[in-house]
Amino acid sequence: MAVNLPPPDPAQLHPVRGVELGVAMAGIRKPDRKDLLVVRLAPGAAVAGVFTQNRFCAAPVTLAKKHLKNPVRALIVNTGNANAGTGKEGLKRAFSVCRALGKAIDAKPSQILPFSTGVIMEQLPAEKLIAALPALRDADWLEAAEAIMTTDTVPKAFSRRVRLSGGEAVVTGIAKGAGMIRPDMATLLAFIATDAKVLPAILHRMVKATAAASFNCITVDGDTSTNDCFVLIATGKGPAVSSRKDLLQLERAVLEITQLLAQALVRDGEGATKFVTVRIERGRSAAECRRVAYAVAHSPLVKTAFFASDPNLGRILAAIGNAGVKLETERVDLYLDGVCVVRKGGRDPSYLESEAVTAMKKPEFTVRAVLNRGKAAATVWTCDLSFDYVKINAEYRT
Amino acid sequence: MAVNLPPPDPAQLHPVRGVELGVAMAGIRKPDRKDLLVVRLAPGAAVAGVFTQNRFCAAPVTLAKKHLKNPVRALIVNTGNANAGTGKEGLKRAFSVCRALGKAIDAKPSQILPFSTGVIMEQLPAEKLIAALPALRDADWLEAAEAIMTTDTVPKAFSRRVRLSGGEAVVTGIAKGAGMIRPDMATLLAFIATDAKVLPAILHRMVKATAAASFNCITVDGDTSTNDCFVLIATGKGPAVSSRKDLLQLERAVLEITQLLAQALVRDGEGATKFVTVRIERGRSAAECRRVAYAVAHSPLVKTAFFASDPNLGRILAAIGNAGVKLETERVDLYLDGVCVVRKGGRDPSYLESEAVTAMKKPEFTVRAVLNRGKAAATVWTCDLSFDYVKINAEYRT
Repeated sequence: MAVNLPPPDPAQLHPVRGVELGVAMAGIRKPDRKDLLVVRLAPGAAVAGVFTQNRFCAAPVTLAKKHLKNPVRALIVNTGNANAGTGKEGLKRAFSVCRALGKAIDAKPSQILPFSTGVIMEQLPAEKLIAALPALRDADWLEAAEAIMTTDTVPKAFSRRVRLSGGEAVVTGIAKGAGMIRPDMATLLAFIATDAKVLPAILHRMVKATAAASFNCITVDGDTSTNDCFVLIATGKGPAVSSRKDLLQLERAVLEITQLLAQALVRDGEGATKFVTVRIERGRSAAECRRVAYAVAHSPLVKTAFFASDPNLGRILAAIGNAGVKLETERVDLYLDGVCVVRKGGRDPSYLESEAVTAMKKPEFTVRAVLNRGKAAATVWTCDLSFDYVKINAEYRT
Repeated sequence: MAVNLPPPDPAQLHPVRGVELGVAMAGIRKPDRKDLLVVRLAPGAAVAGVFTQNRFCAAPVTLAKKHLKNPVRALIVNTGNANAGTGKEGLKRAFSVCRALGKAIDAKPSQILPFSTGVIMEQLPAEKLIAALPALRDADWLEAAEAIMTTDTVPKAFSRRVRLSGGEAVVTGIAKGAGMIRPDMATLLAFIATDAKVLPAILHRMVKATAAASFNCITVDGDTSTNDCFVLIATGKGPAVSSRKDLLQLERAVLEITQLLAQALVRDGEGATKFVTVRIERGRSAAECRRVAYAVAHSPLVKTAFFASDPNLGRILAAIGNAGVKLETERVDLYLDGVCVVRKGGRDPSYLESEAVTAMKKPEFTVRAVLNRGKAAATVWTCDLSFDYVKINAEYRT
């Protein structure tokens, strides 16, 4: 059901030197399902991350933020249980998993980053994770992507080669998430690794910059998860970033992967049948453009109109008017792909509804509003609101 | 399908001296349907109103705000077309309706308040409204409530008698609205009239105060309409408000009507199967409590869990954490009716899910979060998100 999102071709997912992947079936929520991923890093790997801004951030998020200050040796990720809203006991259980994995790979517990995703407010069955550690088997990036899926229907993984001055580096990343998606500084579990050698300070800047232009530009339902994390790893087993050009090359590849992953989350959004780009142009500031874009992308009325391929475009105008921006409505132009719908705040006299229907019946289209009051712009990617969104979320725990 | 909302009993809707009601079938969008209401006021009536904060406010809203400065002689309300996003032509058409009605009742166009509700961004068929004026027939408050319905399934009208020092006054009000409901200073078309004699300045204060405690405390889908208006009329044909006690009595009756109407909008929210009170207590300020309450009431994940009677209460915690309030999560308690679900930020050890299921299966229940960081509180009324919400809005124009 995902919109224009074929499953990844494993042959196109390049291994990353310095990264070893292992998956297991720990039976956390359902039996016979890959639900545990361990990412082992060679010594010396640099790791940077951004995390959810939700005040009820999960126990593993609290620990991962803390452990990130140490030389990280492994990440451990489980699905089926978010370990959020679990208080001190949740922190204890997450730490016990770090301790067990640390023991197994000869590292300190504080060198392990834990990640969890799944149901909120139930205690983590840490003993199941720990019992499954000996059963971990080597995996490739596709299997790693599969092991972190929850309501996702398609695994998300992308990979690029980058030519640096010292040789060829690779960037490979995975992500999961289909609902509770409106990331704020990060998204629901995304991991990207490169074998390039990058200074930690530069990696930290890069994780923020690329998150801002990718995961922080998407929304499925406007709900920010308690467990969002995006981690960028540079193992340093490949060529070093040794020039400004190298840095630009690498950052471009990382940005491309983050945007592909972020868009993949929306394409596979719960119940999604449409992938919609909302572009706001000529605003006073990027922040104001983002505010308007999110007002459109979050409106249930706009999203149900997308689902119905119904050019009930007044709903988009109403959403723009609700964004809390003091815009001059008489200057606003609105386009659906190439079709001008509104000019100077009112229906364009030449607008034909049949043209809008044609655009909206496509699985992908762009809603573009031009505010004509400045030079800034912003883009947000979103999906429609369908029967299946309600069905999936009404039946999530059954 | 409305939640605990029987149709009004016409015998309980008291006529208001100084108000004459007329309805007609103007065929604006569909034939054979009451879609036009005229409310004639005796000379000397005081009128106050609050209007949508949507920047794309409709042409009739712009005119009504302007005409409110004059001695108002009539209100004219049509359904089927919102006359919003219609630019200068929309203003012209709305004014032509005021002119025609003014001529018919011997008043200036600027003494008429126009109101429209229905599809956005289509020009108002003013000629149909004008042609229907001679066909207006006398109506009671129930028929008036019926004439302003769109996706409403039940007409909304309430009435109270108030004993003032100079005699008995009545307060009767109607409202419409089921979707695009998250009023901001007012709601989708509500009209309340009293025959009490009230100074305009006092009426103006009263309309703001009662809107703040009623229409501004509800949400169906978080979308603020382009056409929201709440108008309070005091014809002065009954007893005067001549003491502080009179004022309190009257305001209490008006507040009761506004709250009943506001709750009726939610009970009849598009696709609603549950009526949910979200109460946030012990916050630092009412504003912060409202922010948290709306974060819960707007979350599609929370609303689908309400629909499913699924105590997936972690979703409520996640929504509270997303409200943009820097609350101390370890102090938060959460209750579902009488059931304590979360204590000090984590699952209450004595919490039994079966008790939460029992509470949520009822058509009405309360979600109550105690922030334990101050003395303020706020209440928001909302409904669930069901298949029918998607169905109604995907098929709205077909």
